[in-house]
Amino acid sequence: MSDGNSNFRTFRDYRWDGVSLLKYKDEGAAPFKEVTRQTLFSRPDLAGELRYFEVAPGGYSTLERHQHTHAILILRGRGQGLVGAEVRRIGEHDLITVPPMTWHQFRAARDAPLGFLCMVDATRDRPQLPTPEDLNELRAKPAVAKFLDGDGPGAA
Amino acid sequence: MSDGNSNFRTFRDYRWDGVSLLKYKDEGAAPFKEVTRQTLFSRPDLAGELRYFEVAPGGYSTLERHQHTHAILILRGRGQGLVGAEVRRIGEHDLITVPPMTWHQFRAARDAPLGFLCMVDATRDRPQLPTPEDLNELRAKPAVAKFLDGDGPGAA
Repeated sequence: MSDGNSNFRTFRDYRWDGVSLLKYKDEGAAPFKEVTRQTLFSRPDLAGELRYFEVAPGGYSTLERHQHTHAILILRGRGQGLVGAEVRRIGEHDLITVPPMTWHQFRAARDAPLGFLCMVDATRDRPQLPTPEDLNELRAKPAVAKFLDGDGPGAA
Repeated sequence: MSDGNSNFRTFRDYRWDGVSLLKYKDEGAAPFKEVTRQTLFSRPDLAGELRYFEVAPGGYSTLERHQHTHAILILRGRGQGLVGAEVRRIGEHDLITVPPMTWHQFRAARDAPLGFLCMVDATRDRPQLPTPEDLNELRAKPAVAKFLDGDGPGAA
């Protein structure tokens, strides 16, 4: 079903024609566990990019913040999300907005993957990691501390 | 599960918390049948927008072209798509790129809806409709004529 010049790209088992399966980040660059990345749309004539990230069961994305905004739609599975001081159970087709400079992290359930689409501006800043002080501040809220320990709602 | 200030919006039955179900276009503005529109993400701090369109069984979007690019992911159901002179059967999670000034139309199968995400630039031009000459040119290709008559691959 694939040819290099087609405007149609077929989906099969959470892979797409002509889309490479990439590491989420370079190992050691930041803490994360079991995350892959696929860039579905990135073109000079589009101001936005659409990526697909998949967190394996029990895995998690990096806890980080940045100036650019994330627009997320869960495509597959379930888990839990932290955005700012808000922790929520997340599941298929739920929407998540990560506003500028807002700490965020996503965790797959222990028995299910968490796959999500993420729209961002093509031109964007690099993420910042939390300092020990930032972490203390985040952990001051019990629900957030529980989430960071992998034990929030949607963990099971 | 909904509150106005949350960054999480819950999905249920192809509707989302706080997202209005809109008409695809004003009646009479252009030919189309049985299409709804929901804007999932549109924010001043995002260069792109993400919308969800749903074509009911047997329905179709407008045949049109424009300078801006569409980045499409099928979220639900199946049908057929026309992009340029290419006609293809389309199904869940397939990707479709509509490059600038390329005629395109999407049709749901007769017995299934066709729901898709569409990323566009927030700033974009208005669509153009085909002239009778454009239609003749499109119909010169038998596969395209068949599609335009609602009888292409993926119609059943």
